[in-house]
Amino acid sequence: MEKHISTAAALTEAELGLIDRYWRAANYLSVGQIYLLANPLLREPLKPEHIKPRLLGHWGTTPGLNFIYAHLNRLIRGRDLDVIYICGPGHGGPGMVANTYLEGSYSEIYPDISEDAEGMRKLFRQFSFPGGIPSHAAPETPGSIHEGGELGYALVHAYGAAFDNPDLIVACVIGDGEAETGPLAASWHSNKFLNPARDGAVLPILHLNGYKIANPTILGRAADDDLRRLFEGYGYEPFFVDGHEPRDMHQQMAATMDRIFDRIRDIQHQARNGKAADGCPRWPMIVLRSPKGWTGPKEVDGKKVEGFWRAHQVPVSNCREDDGHRKILEDWMRGYDPEDLFDTGGRLKPELRALAPAGKRRMGANPHANGGLLRRELAVPDLRDYAVDIGRRGSVVAQSTQVLGHYLRDTMKLNAEAANFRIFGPDETESNRLGSVFEVTDRVWMEDIEPYDIHLSRDGRVVEVLSEHLCQGWLEGYLLTGRHGLFSCYEAFIHIIDSMFNQHAKWLKVTGELEWRKPISSLNYLLTSHVWRQDHNGFSHQDPGFIDLVANKKADIVRIYLPPDANTLLWVGDHCLRTYDRINVIVAGKQPEPQWLSMDEAVKHCEAGIGIWHWASNEEEAVAPDLVMACAGDVPTMETLAAVDLLRKAIPALKIRTVNVVDLLALQSRDQHPHGLTDEAFDAIFTSDKPVIFAYHGYPYLIHRLTYKRTNHENIHVRGFIEEGTTTTPFDMTVLNELDRYHLAIEAIERVPGLKEKAADALAAFHDKLAEHHAYVREYGEDMPEVRNWTWPTA
Amino acid sequence: MEKHISTAAALTEAELGLIDRYWRAANYLSVGQIYLLANPLLREPLKPEHIKPRLLGHWGTTPGLNFIYAHLNRLIRGRDLDVIYICGPGHGGPGMVANTYLEGSYSEIYPDISEDAEGMRKLFRQFSFPGGIPSHAAPETPGSIHEGGELGYALVHAYGAAFDNPDLIVACVIGDGEAETGPLAASWHSNKFLNPARDGAVLPILHLNGYKIANPTILGRAADDDLRRLFEGYGYEPFFVDGHEPRDMHQQMAATMDRIFDRIRDIQHQARNGKAADGCPRWPMIVLRSPKGWTGPKEVDGKKVEGFWRAHQVPVSNCREDDGHRKILEDWMRGYDPEDLFDTGGRLKPELRALAPAGKRRMGANPHANGGLLRRELAVPDLRDYAVDIGRRGSVVAQSTQVLGHYLRDTMKLNAEAANFRIFGPDETESNRLGSVFEVTDRVWMEDIEPYDIHLSRDGRVVEVLSEHLCQGWLEGYLLTGRHGLFSCYEAFIHIIDSMFNQHAKWLKVTGELEWRKPISSLNYLLTSHVWRQDHNGFSHQDPGFIDLVANKKADIVRIYLPPDANTLLWVGDHCLRTYDRINVIVAGKQPEPQWLSMDEAVKHCEAGIGIWHWASNEEEAVAPDLVMACAGDVPTMETLAAVDLLRKAIPALKIRTVNVVDLLALQSRDQHPHGLTDEAFDAIFTSDKPVIFAYHGYPYLIHRLTYKRTNHENIHVRGFIEEGTTTTPFDMTVLNELDRYHLAIEAIERVPGLKEKAADALAAFHDKLAEHHAYVREYGEDMPEVRNWTWPTA
Repeated sequence: MEKHISTAAALTEAELGLIDRYWRAANYLSVGQIYLLANPLLREPLKPEHIKPRLLGHWGTTPGLNFIYAHLNRLIRGRDLDVIYICGPGHGGPGMVANTYLEGSYSEIYPDISEDAEGMRKLFRQFSFPGGIPSHAAPETPGSIHEGGELGYALVHAYGAAFDNPDLIVACVIGDGEAETGPLAASWHSNKFLNPARDGAVLPILHLNGYKIANPTILGRAADDDLRRLFEGYGYEPFFVDGHEPRDMHQQMAATMDRIFDRIRDIQHQARNGKAADGCPRWPMIVLRSPKGWTGPKEVDGKKVEGFWRAHQVPVSNCREDDGHRKILEDWMRGYDPEDLFDTGGRLKPELRALAPAGKRRMGANPHANGGLLRRELAVPDLRDYAVDIGRRGSVVAQSTQVLGHYLRDTMKLNAEAANFRIFGPDETESNRLGSVFEVTDRVWMEDIEPYDIHLSRDGRVVEVLSEHLCQGWLEGYLLTGRHGLFSCYEAFIHIIDSMFNQHAKWLKVTGELEWRKPISSLNYLLTSHVWRQDHNGFSHQDPGFIDLVANKKADIVRIYLPPDANTLLWVGDHCLRTYDRINVIVAGKQPEPQWLSMDEAVKHCEAGIGIWHWASNEEEAVAPDLVMACAGDVPTMETLAAVDLLRKAIPALKIRTVNVVDLLALQSRDQHPHGLTDEAFDAIFTSDKPVIFAYHGYPYLIHRLTYKRTNHENIHVRGFIEEGTTTTPFDMTVLNELDRYHLAIEAIERVPGLKEKAADALAAFHDKLAEHHAYVREYGEDMPEVRNWTWPTA
Repeated sequence: MEKHISTAAALTEAELGLIDRYWRAANYLSVGQIYLLANPLLREPLKPEHIKPRLLGHWGTTPGLNFIYAHLNRLIRGRDLDVIYICGPGHGGPGMVANTYLEGSYSEIYPDISEDAEGMRKLFRQFSFPGGIPSHAAPETPGSIHEGGELGYALVHAYGAAFDNPDLIVACVIGDGEAETGPLAASWHSNKFLNPARDGAVLPILHLNGYKIANPTILGRAADDDLRRLFEGYGYEPFFVDGHEPRDMHQQMAATMDRIFDRIRDIQHQARNGKAADGCPRWPMIVLRSPKGWTGPKEVDGKKVEGFWRAHQVPVSNCREDDGHRKILEDWMRGYDPEDLFDTGGRLKPELRALAPAGKRRMGANPHANGGLLRRELAVPDLRDYAVDIGRRGSVVAQSTQVLGHYLRDTMKLNAEAANFRIFGPDETESNRLGSVFEVTDRVWMEDIEPYDIHLSRDGRVVEVLSEHLCQGWLEGYLLTGRHGLFSCYEAFIHIIDSMFNQHAKWLKVTGELEWRKPISSLNYLLTSHVWRQDHNGFSHQDPGFIDLVANKKADIVRIYLPPDANTLLWVGDHCLRTYDRINVIVAGKQPEPQWLSMDEAVKHCEAGIGIWHWASNEEEAVAPDLVMACAGDVPTMETLAAVDLLRKAIPALKIRTVNVVDLLALQSRDQHPHGLTDEAFDAIFTSDKPVIFAYHGYPYLIHRLTYKRTNHENIHVRGFIEEGTTTTPFDMTVLNELDRYHLAIEAIERVPGLKEKAADALAAFHDKLAEHHAYVREYGEDMPEVRNWTWPTA
């Protein structure tokens, strides 16, 4: 199959001249941003004072990005297409800024950066300048939903944006550096989840400029034949555009783009008219080989720059001090012939401006790239319809996530027409007990479907792949373009996307400061199959540390919920799905566990975020208790209640207050987090001087970190996961980490002043129980009946 | 190219019968481990009490793993090969245990699990049983260097093991679930870094059993032709083995293995005799299609099990309670014909035992899979030879990592012959200023090398790829097989491998408890291009949170170092390279910065881990200071010293103690960390009641978490990164996060009782300086001269 397209007649001479000038204008503005403080139109010779004192930015990738942008403009205008541009090499920020400035969308958002000489001066000056704009395709950049600072997520973001957006085409530039990352290498398989009948198209443009910071790239050095096989193997139809001579490259690119957009239209047309062959269509993609630092200095100080890694950042660096370097810069910029591009007022000449699309068709003004503009509220059912009737407290056993699954099923149904809600997960929706969503939808699957397959279809709204990176990236792309979703994941393996979480949190932090960026739906994690219940697996699956990472982020962005039972999980899930511009982390078990709160109680408890469970306390009104037993997380809650039960039976005179925390960050001070309790409220719950035994789901340090400023902090004794684990019984896991009822009860006795002596018998009995457990579990392979069958006593 | 090998004569009838019986024995033992408490040889009918109360484990992948093991044994024996087995589907642990038991290596390590009926009973009982062994190919499993609980790292571990092990063949089984992950998708490109002349071989065996937990797999459903193109595109020569009929499959596998090992031998022979064509050889690989749960129950309760995802874990689950289910189990196990496999004593029959290799050739006894057995001490130069002469304190400016680079260069040279030291990094060795290693070695590169390329060669010992996952995974594989290395990375992006770090820490925690596992070299991170100096990039590159993740791990495993200058970095680097069974994190800047400590001082300071810098203090002997100014990290150290300078000039009467922390975990209590200071030592440094202004490199909460038990904790006021960042000047970054000298000095004045009023002028002046900075930096784009040019005053 010949993939180099015949280029004879793609562009007329006039068209070619115009598109080349447009490209030169973008290149000129890109260089100007990296270098110039003043003299933007080079109306006088460059002087040292025109040059920025610190030259920061990345030239190497930029001319290629500009080239692609110009050619996409041509297609958008010619075919009235709805296209957004994902700039994988986000450090080519100058290019994205230059192009949105040329098309006018930049000045609409930032009127101070006007379309004239003064605006151009400010445009140049602000780039990578204190108080100005960052060097990347950051939230500040119009048309961007992808910063690209951390590489690997361009293509997965593109697919996420295309899901359920049938008229959208997502052009996605992938640098050959980025292509070496794991997430990107897996992202190519996203085509197996894109349904041409209902989803938009993704056009991957693999930009091979051959080099990273100081190395060639793997794919840049690969032979065309290997690249062709690789991408055919991934299921694509690759088209090659390769060269450096601008005229020839424009013709190749224009002809290839024409061919490709025809192909995309055909695939969609067939799928939408029921004529498609079954299975995954072979979507087109572009492999673009162009020199790194294309059109920049060929050599500096006798060393190769264009077409080599030396062009990566600032190709000629000493322009303020060194006349020769400054001359190279001036010749380079004048080579673009600014007089031919901008009028005397500094405005792009009208025949060039006419090459950009208009209004919302401009890629810098496309509302999909500012998803909040398109976001519709999610329709949700009444959570009370799913409430578990708890009967006698603690006597009903339910699987919390299964209950939430019913709610999610109906949420899915209510938004089926809007087609703006999806659930993502690494092959775990069923395992995480959310299976009832399959009553109303399926898993999406574009490869062959066998007759015996279950809940697989082309139209499924559950997206499962064994890659947390893809789940996270698809969901991010989906949210950033104005939709809603949930990511359900094994708790331990959410660490796989720690860095993606970081980057999304950073994105939200910055967009929150930009008035023109409209709120997007929150990124919701449901972490289940958690540390305490990894019955089939063991130590590798036992890690509750993601919460710690989350707690480091800006308080207005993150929330952490540890609902202890099904009704509280329902409230939390419902709440999170209705929030925006946040990251919500919900940790909840999937295993059968006792139910504690009625729906009314759950609502009240969750709204407060934290509270005293009076029904599990025996303190007297207006008298401080002897002891506070606090807990956060479902397993710690059960163990705490069991410990309270043990203590009350053994030492009836001991006055115990039982506290449960759902909204973890309520523990922080009000000045640190908007959900934080005031000191007065905190002291009212935790007392100012009584021992607090705190059973926590995760690493105990976090509770100290959250509470170190509180009055009673030095009496707060936290137990949690201390990195002990293996394949064992549920109760034995808590014993290994000393979070079980006996350890909690023992510590309670030891911490209440004077009690140790009085309750020596109870203390000995609890130690005996631990020994008994140890022997029993090793003999019988399951927990002691009195542990397995324990229930909260009838009042 | 025909890849299905002709199988006519690969095995004689006798050989076929034997290998099939061996495989059946492994399958029998695998099922037994999942199900049985007793009656291991089925000498009586199965009764409920023979069945474990909790059935845990994964059958689905296991028969395929056993099949591969048996065929590898044949090759090892036939050709006297040195092979280790990486079990990507690590939850197929029963298979790895079964095979090492069959070959005798298991009982050698665990004599209690003897090769007789009683040993077999214990073998079965201990699996996934409290006090027994975990369900995965964990550290407890002989022959394993890869637990595989978290999927994605099998192939990258395999390549890491093969580097510099010319005689080793690493057989690596990759499940089709794992193949969907990002890290695995990128790992295929590792072939571009494997030199057949000096490295061993990796044999990837992609095991397509078609299903994950509840879904088909992408590659399992892909057409052979697409798979062929994909792997050819990755640069391999794929061979297909496909079917389910055992006789046919044995013949296919044997013939394919013969052909493949011939091919490996040819590639190596040619490369080692200078006859290889230049470039990357096309290494063979196997695509093995076999049914999930092969040879297990075809149906249970009328539902398809074998060849479907229902075979993933325990295919027939109710065997204790349900007679019908127990019958299915009994029929299944008897189908392997145990009397044909084991003698009356329960020992594997001699003609089968003869199929296993002997001694160290057994994959469960191969010393490469217990790398500490092979580990040689790293030869290191005298660090004093690289010391920076600091002259007048603070006046010499050096790039710390560059200085360490000289030391690493000579370390590389000293171990060149042993060929057991490598540096890994994502294209950043030069950027991170370690470039002097290129005086003695290159970057390894197996694709084409152009005449203008720099420091690229087939024999380089620096391994660079733009994938933190690959860098981490290769290094892990390299260390686990007994070698040494360093991973140099941008600080923010080390979060990409958070989860791999977690898993390696878990591995080390468990191996530390196993006498027979010998110590391996520490995993050393050099994190540079850190949060405070991301001049070209900005917010996406600013994240110091990896330290927090590390601090959650077991104290005996992790160390965190923040050397403030070059000589301290030299000591820390040298120290870390000589440790074992740890994970060392070093955070150090690459930018020019002032030098504080002579080599003698650096040694003393680093050995203590923390100390008072008397030269920067003006307290009087035997009198407590008014204030402690503490710091950890290079930039915080500089800002603290500048603040001390400001304060001493403005308020000469103020008695300041300056403290620097190199070894962060020294802040913890001695009972929490072996490097922790005793409370007495801590109080002697931080006082018991004076204000401490602590300038810290990362998120401030960590310091609170580490010190919350200390006497003076409530007077410790920490400043650090509070998630404010962008592309700006170095000093402006510290101002944005209120970690700069002026904020530090202001807080000092505010915290010392009574000082605020006395030092009102100084306070106002510092506030003015902040305003002046703000205006200056936005006007000129660089920091104020008095900030840029500040140096520590001459005594």
